[in-house]
Order: sequence, then C-alpha cells, then structure tokens
Amino acid sequence: MKLVRTIADMQQLAREWHRNGKRIGLVPTMGYLHEGHLSLLDVAASRSEEVVVSVFVNPSQFGPGEDLERYPRDFERDRELCENRGAAAIFCPSVEEMYAGGHSTWVIEDKLTAPLCGASRPTHFRGVTTVVAKLFNAVLPDVAVFGQKDGQQALVIQRMVRDLNFPVEIVVAPTVRETDGLAMSSRNAYLTRDDRDRALAISRGLRKAREAFANGERHASALRLLVAQEIEDAAGRIDYVEMVSRQDLKPLVLVGEPAMLAVAAFFGKTRLIDNCFLG
Amino acid sequence: MKLVRTIADMQQLAREWHRNGKRIGLVPTMGYLHEGHLSLLDVAASRSEEVVVSVFVNPSQFGPGEDLERYPRDFERDRELCENRGAAAIFCPSVEEMYAGGHSTWVIEDKLTAPLCGASRPTHFRGVTTVVAKLFNAVLPDVAVFGQKDGQQALVIQRMVRDLNFPVEIVVAPTVRETDGLAMSSRNAYLTRDDRDRALAISRGLRKAREAFANGERHASALRLLVAQEIEDAAGRIDYVEMVSRQDLKPLVLVGEPAMLAVAAFFGKTRLIDNCFLG
Repeated sequence: MKLVRTIADMQQLAREWHRNGKRIGLVPTMGYLHEGHLSLLDVAASRSEEVVVSVFVNPSQFGPGEDLERYPRDFERDRELCENRGAAAIFCPSVEEMYAGGHSTWVIEDKLTAPLCGASRPTHFRGVTTVVAKLFNAVLPDVAVFGQKDGQQALVIQRMVRDLNFPVEIVVAPTVRETDGLAMSSRNAYLTRDDRDRALAISRGLRKAREAFANGERHASALRLLVAQEIEDAAGRIDYVEMVSRQDLKPLVLVGEPAMLAVAAFFGKTRLIDNCFLG
Repeated sequence: MKLVRTIADMQQLAREWHRNGKRIGLVPTMGYLHEGHLSLLDVAASRSEEVVVSVFVNPSQFGPGEDLERYPRDFERDRELCENRGAAAIFCPSVEEMYAGGHSTWVIEDKLTAPLCGASRPTHFRGVTTVVAKLFNAVLPDVAVFGQKDGQQALVIQRMVRDLNFPVEIVVAPTVRETDGLAMSSRNAYLTRDDRDRALAISRGLRKAREAFANGERHASALRLLVAQEIEDAAGRIDYVEMVSRQDLKPLVLVGEPAMLAVAAFFGKTRLIDNCFLG
C-alpha cells in the first residue's frame, strides 16, 4: 500500500492506473477509522480495482469553536486498518498542501445545504463540497463511496457531482452500527460512559419511527415526536429532528415520497447525527 | 471533426482519447469565432493531439439587462472555422444539458473577482468559474487555452485551477488585434462605424501607456491617465481604467512588480475590455 502526500504524486499515480485500464475507487475520510469507514472500503473494492482512502481532517468544514483541534487522530492505526482491508493507497496531504496560501475558491451548493446541519453549521458544507471537489481532482476516482450516516452530505455531494459534471459515480453505503444500535462515528470517542448510554436514545427513537412507519403512520409530526421524545427522556439536547424529502430536503408533512428522518442531538458536549430513510 | 452535444458523450470521447495516450486541448468559447479564438486553437494544437472547442453561450455569466439574448451566434460559420483550423471536436451542449433543473452548485472565487469587471458585473465571474469547471469535467482536458484580452478571467481561472486541483494546465495566449489595434471580440459586431472608430482610443491609450512605461514612467496614476484621456477625448464612457498587480489584482501606486493595466469602456451601448501587461 502506498502513502501519497502530494496532489501531484496522487494525480500521477491515478493517471498511471487509468492508463493501465484500472478503475479507481475513493473513500474520503477524516481518519480515526472505524468499521463504518472500512465497510465503505469494501463497497469501493467491489466496484473498482484500486481503492484510495483519503485521510484528511479538513479545517474548512469546521466552524469557529467546533472541534477541529481535538478531532481524534491516529494515523498509524488508520494505516494498518487500510492496509489490512486491501487499500491500494492512502492519500494523506498536509493542510498546507491542500490549502495553498491565498486559497480563495469555494464550491458552494446553496439549496440542499440550507436546512438541517447547514442551519446549525453555516460554513460546514462549503468546506465539505470544496474539499471533496479537491479530492476528486487529486485522486481522479471513477467511483466514490460515502456513508448514509451523513445523509445530507451524501445528497449534497450527489447534487454537486451532477451540477459540476464530475465524471464520478457516487455510492451511498448503509450506516454501520454498534451492536446496541449506536451509529458508528469517530466522534463517539468523545462520549463519556454515561453520554454513550444516553445517546442510544437516537437510534432507539429512529427504530421506533421505522416501526411506526411500517405499521402505517405517515404523519411527519408523529414520527418526529417518537424520536424527540426518546432523546428528551434521555436528557439529550436536540439540535433538530426533521422529516425531509430525499429529493430536495424540504420538510414533509406527510411521508408520501422517499423521505429522510434526520436527527442531530447533543449528549454532553458531543453533537451526534443519525438518520433513517423511509419510503 | 465531431459534433458532441451531451456531457456523457464528451466524457466518453475524452476517455477514449486518454486511453489511447492522446493529450486533449480545450478552447472554451461562446462562439461567433474570430481570429483571436482561432489563434487559441493553434496554441492548443501545439500542446495536445486532440483539440476540442467548446461553443456555449453561458447564461449564468450574463447579468440581468446584459446582452445574453442578442449575443451574436453563427454556429455554421463556427463549425467551418473549427474544422478548417484542425479541431478534433466541437462540444456544443444545449443550455438544458448544461444546467439541469434545480442547478444549485456554484464555483466561487472570492478575491480576484472583486475588482475590475467583478465590481461592474457582480455575478459574472461566478458564472465563468462554474461553467469552466463544468467544461473541464466534461472535456477532461490536459491543457486549456484562454485569451489575454480577458485578463482578469485568465487570472481567476488560474486561481481556480490551483485552488481546486484541476489536473489542467492553463495557457494564456496573447490578444489578437485588428490591423488598426482594436482587440478582437465577438462584441465588436455590436459597434456602429462611428463607435468602432472612436473605440480605437482604448488600444491607442494602452499603446501610449506601454511607451511611457518603456521610457521609465512608473506612476500608475500617470499611466492610467494616458488611457483615460484618450477614451474621454473620443467620447467613450469609462467603466474603469486600473493598474493592478498580476499576482492579486490589488491596485498599484507604482509599477514595481508584474502589473496589468486594465480597461473597460462603453462606446455607444457596447462595453469593451482590453489590457496590457507591464513589468
């Protein structure tokens, strides 16, 4: 497995692979890998010959006062996990390599990024779309795999790819959960034992909403309440619990089209997100 | 020569060329080609094996009340000119092909686009950077050639390519002029005979400034005045006459680094731009 630290080296390697008729699969990550990330590697490997994992804690997607500095990092462990899971390369540029002095170009999606996490974290998605565009141009993938846990992010990236004509197929892979239901996230490392127990309210609420939906409940307010109630009972602080169209992320009153029930909530100081698709 | 109307067909053709080891050169245009454009084809041909000319009047770079509807078009003539000049393909998508319903992603450079044309045409460069990113992803060029006449545009594109890591070499080719000095532009077609005679003031002023610079004049105000005086004497309406750094487009007091003397002025209803590099 190769370690690639510069954009020029990555482009050269990608072009070599393409000249040899290889398809490239990209799994963009901020490192501190867990089984959720590794499942994305497997999906990428099923659709390409050379899997590249990018490991880059992207400063531009963190807002002021967010957790950029304390975001968990363990590169040696990430390297071992990627190698064992069959990655062909890790692309791990420095911040200086990715953001040259005087960086002044941004990729901005201005509709799907307005609600949900975009409302709470106003510059977050600008950082995400910009860094993903940069990663696409560095790694030149044929396919890129994102996790459904970051559901809004996946829809925003699909829109960006369509609107800017990136020649990249986007695959959204299912959320991987701990055996007790908690969605895997690098940020789970922040949780105290007590936070973590209470945070199960999120996946429990989503499961109850899925069951109610399966039993015929179509009112967004009733389904949202099932989730909100669980979180409040566990003394979590809700950022949002929303039922939105998977087409345009507009809020739904009745679930009559493909929908996403999306949650963000704080347990202790840790903000967690999760979602489920309905319909 | 091929006519390619869809993004998918263009990407497929580009990938075929790349698989066969061909380098692709792109000349992005809005059509109504003149010798200035054709000189860009020659530059592209000197640096690549397959030259693609894109012909697309991009709505998103025109502001409200600008000349989108009356922008001159003559596709049959453009096709003949490209074929005779050795282009391998014309990429000529429809507006619907380029801007799918609900287009919501923009590439925005927010420093170099602030002054000069960006001050007069606030949404212009957002349209330019977005469409050029889309063209790059459709045509997948190794090299793209832009004209120096649109000097700010060329610098903005170079910045975008650097910031977003597009694997494309940008070449800026010299402005081509009519024998009397007028910079070639598709918009020259708007000029009445009288407008056209008076519009020579722009290139005459720039020539005087270049001569003064060659004779040692370094004060930006003096060099700008030489241009402004010519335009005012010819009853042109100045939009701007600015001396800026070619690094960051910031205004200069003294020309002690690579500079651009940039002009925009109206003759009749027609807005013309021109520039020269100094130092």
